[in-house]
Amino acid sequence: MRRRRKKGADEKLLSYENYVIKNNIELLKGKWKKRFNNENPIHAEFGTGRGKFITTLAKQNPDINYIAMEIKEEVLLKAVEKAAEDNLSNILFVWGDVSNILDYFDKGELDRVFVNFCDPWPKKRWAKRRLTHSNFLEMYKTILKENGELHFKTDNEKLFEFSLNEIASNNWLLKNISLDLANSDYTENVTTEYEDKFMSQGIKIFRCEAEKRN
Amino acid sequence: MRRRRKKGADEKLLSYENYVIKNNIELLKGKWKKRFNNENPIHAEFGTGRGKFITTLAKQNPDINYIAMEIKEEVLLKAVEKAAEDNLSNILFVWGDVSNILDYFDKGELDRVFVNFCDPWPKKRWAKRRLTHSNFLEMYKTILKENGELHFKTDNEKLFEFSLNEIASNNWLLKNISLDLANSDYTENVTTEYEDKFMSQGIKIFRCEAEKRN
Ligand SMILES: C[S@@+](CC[C@H](N)C(=O)[O-])C[C@H]1O[C@@H](n2cnc3c(N)ncnc32)[C@H](O)[C@@H]1O
Ligand SMILES: C[S@@+](CC[C@H](N)C(=O)[O-])C[C@H]1O[C@@H](n2cnc3c(N)ncnc32)[C@H](O)[C@@H]1O
Repeated sequence: MRRRRKKGADEKLLSYENYVIKNNIELLKGKWKKRFNNENPIHAEFGTGRGKFITTLAKQNPDINYIAMEIKEEVLLKAVEKAAEDNLSNILFVWGDVSNILDYFDKGELDRVFVNFCDPWPKKRWAKRRLTHSNFLEMYKTILKENGELHFKTDNEKLFEFSLNEIASNNWLLKNISLDLANSDYTENVTTEYEDKFMSQGIKIFRCEAEKRN
Repeated sequence: MRRRRKKGADEKLLSYENYVIKNNIELLKGKWKKRFNNENPIHAEFGTGRGKFITTLAKQNPDINYIAMEIKEEVLLKAVEKAAEDNLSNILFVWGDVSNILDYFDKGELDRVFVNFCDPWPKKRWAKRRLTHSNFLEMYKTILKENGELHFKTDNEKLFEFSLNEIASNNWLLKNISLDLANSDYTENVTTEYEDKFMSQGIKIFRCEAEKRN
């Protein structure tokens, strides 16, 4: 039963041909602007989940192209459905693993990377799996253009602490660090599904931006 | 009455001639190592209060020279008494205002600056009075040697957030950021009087280090 349901999500997802990219993602490396058919900047979210954040941004900013990457087909399907409902033409969904981004994006091809509420992987021996580990930061640097930015949010204090230290030691320029987003000066916040849940429980949200250097 | 008591503290303080410097501090500019009579590194704490932190460090590290700066004579007196009790010879107390440090210290004369639980000055229009405002950070940079460090602790979340942003944008290399010192890997912590009070109330302590760059 479970397998059948899962297969259903797969097929449904791939039926959104204009939105979803799974096979041969490598062929788009260096060619994303062509695929979007314009020269607009490209912002990518890694670990998109159900996609509220990035589809909202895509609606708000028609002059920016968005790429949403997510590994789980069931949640990605929800995200794609949101975009299809609004007929958005400035967003694409990559059904893939963030670990492989160097195969998918060329040097300097992205203008901004978003990581929102990524899995905290709390044990020390799992640190390398965190999407803000320096190994990932190095990859983001590679695919970001000069002065490109990483925007990061989490509810997890330990993960935020870890991330600030990784980002600082990886030589990014930290900016707009917020230790309690709800009580900060940052007014343009667009929330994610996880964020909505945490905020309704009164849980504090941490956020920072980091600008690529050298 | 109050005035008499205050005068008492003044006189008492200045009677510790070997420890306390108030008049003609400028004469020591560039000559602190001479005053300590050795070539050991110099660590300074700005806004020392009652001095538990810096006198403990002075006891632990005879090969480092310490300078404690405090503007209020009553609390500084408590700090001096601690040092005198232990007959410490590697510490001096400056009864002065941190705003004037460029008159007191030469370029690169200090190896480390500590700021612990400085007054948060919560209103925006007071931001320039915070000892982690970029104007102060610039002064610390001037009097710190190359790769010299600033070590900062506070219980105040808003002040810590402000300070991280100031430090990052002032081009220091942030290190060992801790969002909850009691539950961190940092085991060598020496507490201050304020810190003891906050910790006994279960209040979280924030800490970071920052290395001077260019
Ligand atoms: C905790 S959820 C947060 C989802 C969404 N960003 C939000 O804030 O609502 C983390 C998401 O990242 C996805 N994810 C984790 N590791 C990934 C990877 N290596 N590649 C792609 N997606 C990943 C998970 O499948 C999950 O949907
Ligand atoms: C909140 S207390 C903390 C004292 C001590 N660091 C501790 O953690 O227990 C701040 C101290 O900084 C001193 N202070 C504030 N501004 C100062 C300045 N501009 N120059 C020297 N001392 C200052 C105050 O007099 C006060 O003793």
